[in-house]
Amino acid sequence: MRVTSFPLATLRDSPSEAEIISHQLLLKGGYIRRVSAGIYSYMPLLQRVIDKISLIIDKELSKQGCNKLLLPQLHPAELWKKSERWEGYTAGEGIMFNLKDRQQREYGLAPTHEEVITKIVSDIINSYKQLPISFYQIQTKFRDEIRPRFGLMRSREFIMKDAYSFHSNEDDLKRFYKIMEDSYKKIFRDCGIKTVGVEADSGAIGGASSKEFMITAEAGEDTILITKSGSYAANIEKAVSIPIKGKVLKDNDQILISTPNQKSINELCENNNLDPSQVVKVIIFVGKFENKVELPILVCIRGDQSINEVKLFNLINQKNKSNLINLSVIDKASDDSKNLNQVPFGFLGPDLADNKINIDSKWEKEWLRIVDLSAFELSKFVSGANETNYHRRFNSWDSLTIKTIKADIRNAKEGDYLSVDMKERLIEKKGIEIGHIFQLGQKYTEKLNAKFSDKEGQLKNIWMGCYGIGVTRLAQAAIEQNHDDNGIIWPIQIAPFEVVIIPTNIKDQDQRDFSNEIYQDFIERNIDVLYDDRDERAGVKFKDADLIGIPFRIVIGRDYKNGEVELISRSKKTQLKISSKEILEKFLYESKLMYN
Amino acid sequence: MRVTSFPLATLRDSPSEAEIISHQLLLKGGYIRRVSAGIYSYMPLLQRVIDKISLIIDKELSKQGCNKLLLPQLHPAELWKKSERWEGYTAGEGIMFNLKDRQQREYGLAPTHEEVITKIVSDIINSYKQLPISFYQIQTKFRDEIRPRFGLMRSREFIMKDAYSFHSNEDDLKRFYKIMEDSYKKIFRDCGIKTVGVEADSGAIGGASSKEFMITAEAGEDTILITKSGSYAANIEKAVSIPIKGKVLKDNDQILISTPNQKSINELCENNNLDPSQVVKVIIFVGKFENKVELPILVCIRGDQSINEVKLFNLINQKNKSNLINLSVIDKASDDSKNLNQVPFGFLGPDLADNKINIDSKWEKEWLRIVDLSAFELSKFVSGANETNYHRRFNSWDSLTIKTIKADIRNAKEGDYLSVDMKERLIEKKGIEIGHIFQLGQKYTEKLNAKFSDKEGQLKNIWMGCYGIGVTRLAQAAIEQNHDDNGIIWPIQIAPFEVVIIPTNIKDQDQRDFSNEIYQDFIERNIDVLYDDRDERAGVKFKDADLIGIPFRIVIGRDYKNGEVELISRSKKTQLKISSKEILEKFLYESKLMYN
Repeated sequence: MRVTSFPLATLRDSPSEAEIISHQLLLKGGYIRRVSAGIYSYMPLLQRVIDKISLIIDKELSKQGCNKLLLPQLHPAELWKKSERWEGYTAGEGIMFNLKDRQQREYGLAPTHEEVITKIVSDIINSYKQLPISFYQIQTKFRDEIRPRFGLMRSREFIMKDAYSFHSNEDDLKRFYKIMEDSYKKIFRDCGIKTVGVEADSGAIGGASSKEFMITAEAGEDTILITKSGSYAANIEKAVSIPIKGKVLKDNDQILISTPNQKSINELCENNNLDPSQVVKVIIFVGKFENKVELPILVCIRGDQSINEVKLFNLINQKNKSNLINLSVIDKASDDSKNLNQVPFGFLGPDLADNKINIDSKWEKEWLRIVDLSAFELSKFVSGANETNYHRRFNSWDSLTIKTIKADIRNAKEGDYLSVDMKERLIEKKGIEIGHIFQLGQKYTEKLNAKFSDKEGQLKNIWMGCYGIGVTRLAQAAIEQNHDDNGIIWPIQIAPFEVVIIPTNIKDQDQRDFSNEIYQDFIERNIDVLYDDRDERAGVKFKDADLIGIPFRIVIGRDYKNGEVELISRSKKTQLKISSKEILEKFLYESKLMYN
Repeated sequence: MRVTSFPLATLRDSPSEAEIISHQLLLKGGYIRRVSAGIYSYMPLLQRVIDKISLIIDKELSKQGCNKLLLPQLHPAELWKKSERWEGYTAGEGIMFNLKDRQQREYGLAPTHEEVITKIVSDIINSYKQLPISFYQIQTKFRDEIRPRFGLMRSREFIMKDAYSFHSNEDDLKRFYKIMEDSYKKIFRDCGIKTVGVEADSGAIGGASSKEFMITAEAGEDTILITKSGSYAANIEKAVSIPIKGKVLKDNDQILISTPNQKSINELCENNNLDPSQVVKVIIFVGKFENKVELPILVCIRGDQSINEVKLFNLINQKNKSNLINLSVIDKASDDSKNLNQVPFGFLGPDLADNKINIDSKWEKEWLRIVDLSAFELSKFVSGANETNYHRRFNSWDSLTIKTIKADIRNAKEGDYLSVDMKERLIEKKGIEIGHIFQLGQKYTEKLNAKFSDKEGQLKNIWMGCYGIGVTRLAQAAIEQNHDDNGIIWPIQIAPFEVVIIPTNIKDQDQRDFSNEIYQDFIERNIDVLYDDRDERAGVKFKDADLIGIPFRIVIGRDYKNGEVELISRSKKTQLKISSKEILEKFLYESKLMYN
């Protein structure tokens, strides 16, 4: 393309709205333009990146026998009601945009497609002979994010590749899941980016097992925990670890401790010569369920640890018949604290009585008491006395006549041990999720009645997996991973152009003629070449080329009259003087090196 | 692809929901599956057709220097308010799906993208040096159709290619419009379909000049008028013609004619020995404007002619400052007839008094009187006497002291003359619109403030064109144009596969080995080949191959042991016995013929 008919639309200043570098560079480089909060136009430069990523995906997935199709974006509510996800996705914090059509029928704008594809499969698959089968699409999806930000990282319209596989048994699902895991690694490698695969929570999608593919970057919104050896990698939502041992509490006869105004763990420890690991924190939550039940929950955890709300959510959801829609902390300021009878916040203990729940409230009248393993393992500890300005020493859990659930609801953190043998410790990194694969099992096929008859003629639920890649997010994450002070440094595999030809003075007839000539040569060789044929100063062109991040730059300048041009690598910053006759050959050689 | 991992999902019976053959064949052939009213999943077979059409479009448009991008589907209401289209597209009969996000901000689901692209161009274009410039995208669009039907013909989610061009003057716009017209012809030819270009109304999109590309087919929802010679082709909404001469009314002294209960033209003519061409029909309309004005309109037309509501709408819209939102006929049963004082429907004359408009109504208090040229050219005519059970003879228009607008608001029809020289007559055909190009002029750039500075440094509005192709509609229209009793007959250019290999007995080791062998050969040659490796009867496979419409079928049957296989053309129904060694060569030869 010639720059005179392919508008670059770069900006001189860094846009103030962008908080992270990749978002800034996308805007500044003219890759995207904002239309509304979290909604962007993908300009021609980005379109070329998207096309390249899509092609890499197409190639790999078709090799795996995955069939490309396109599912609708408007989904009728009935379908999502069958899978029991309509409420969760549209009410409360639900992220599905939804609307009514002219006949007042409800529709959602699809953030994901389990329902639609399962419905199709239930129609077209009858027999084990037709399994396994898999489908994928590359398509714009929608999420009404509570806080859209970071450009394409957390946008409300974005491009996803989503694939779905269907199997006659769990082993075959696991076999294909492994194939997809390998395919994902290959796709990301073919895109020229480095990723790490981590164990992940299945979240609202559901299912038994799932894995995320992360690009590690400071700007990442996910926290991941890995070992140095690579033996373990997990999202914090999922990571399991052994915390460092706490300090043992010394014996002391005093049971009740006067702790005036010492509401925080810090205040309590400082004033009473305690270590946070000797304290048990008690926090009130309320869980609201699809069937309108509201359940008060009392959670205990060691004072130096933090609650993992994803683990907690999954635990509570799993223990109840109805779907948990919302889980929130209750403190003095909460609207919901009206459901309590003068509870002494800041001084709560694990044995807070059930009668502290207001008898007239909508809440259930008994605490669900959950104790994290880190707290449960303490034989002696200090916690609130359930009386303002007092804490207490507790000498055992057994002596408390309360019914508790013991579980891991704790965030793993840097320094934790991987396992009880204490050989490896965890390191914390920030990551950007660009892919996610799930073993869904039979969750959707059961609800949507997708069955097959097995060899014996028995009707069984189909086994299902799903596999996503955030295409636009991948593009931005690649920038987060590859840039310098001057701009983007695209991996050549997904760069909008492989090379840019820059005559330093377009008015010079010789420079122009030669530029035109090699531009034509490159096009004939199917090289993705940009030709900066603008009547602009060389400095402006160089700056734009660096900003938009084209891997190679060929400069036709003053030395051209001596038969020499320059080949410059954006990433290595090498600058080779080359005979103008050899430029095509030399470029082919250098770019091939970069591809490998 | 092997059929065992590429599910065909054909149906045995014709689905009863489909009214037209192409819709039936799409469903029966497993190309689409219905998800909701007017909303379909595009199955892998259709995805391949869409990919081929898209590639043909990409190739041609990139040759014309058109830059591919992707614009968002969710559009903020503010943008559409700037172009003054929000109301028209969302209120009343408006076809734009719309919703509120979690912050209660209004969004529309884009049916078209003039606003978004013009906004971008207003940001990135400053100077005439950057013009002309053009962009296009291929994307799913949305229309909340009042009556979705005919499968992908009038669906609520569909794929469009939309392009937009920007110019520094009208001549350059016209130059590019002509290029696009030629590109469209090439694209449709490259898709293997036959189209006719017709003059068209610009409708809600607006602008000076527009042209539609039609596939003629019985099932078409558009009526087009053409001459045998091809000298003229227009959509009925736009077509201009000279109607056949009416019969001259004989002199008669009787002015008032008693016409008891003769409310229709037919009844009036039969009982009074009149010809419909001697009568002037008078019809009441009401036009409702964006500024809430409601205008009563009295329309007169010759009794044998019909009113063209598009022409009428455009005329009224043009004559008023505010946008006309809705135009509807008022009869006795209309809710709006309460705005009239006992008007004698069935006996209306052109001189119906203004005081027939209820003084207390919201309507304007004076008729806008519009007389079609067919009626105005009558020197004598019969019309209603504005008194129940009476008609009148009128001996001239001049004698009526009313202010009228004379205009062409008539539907052209078969048999009309093309021009006053009466040399060519019009023929009526039904057509399916698959492309539409518009010279928009400055309508959007003015409203969205998209200006450029010209050579003299003067700020001017940019000139704009827009160009659409209905990609999914084209796919279905191609079927409407190419099918027989057994199923689809794809043009090879857009067929999901070029050829299907069918061993009649997959259990026969020799047949299977040879099928595998040529399947691999074909794949290596980049031929789109389907291999029906199912363990099914040959008849089932033949039936499926005919139904889904693959251009060539290679049958490996009993004669294979004698070294012979069959090459069968779906369209020509030729059946060639060929030496198995020559099958690849023969296929390449025959398919090349078909491409040309």
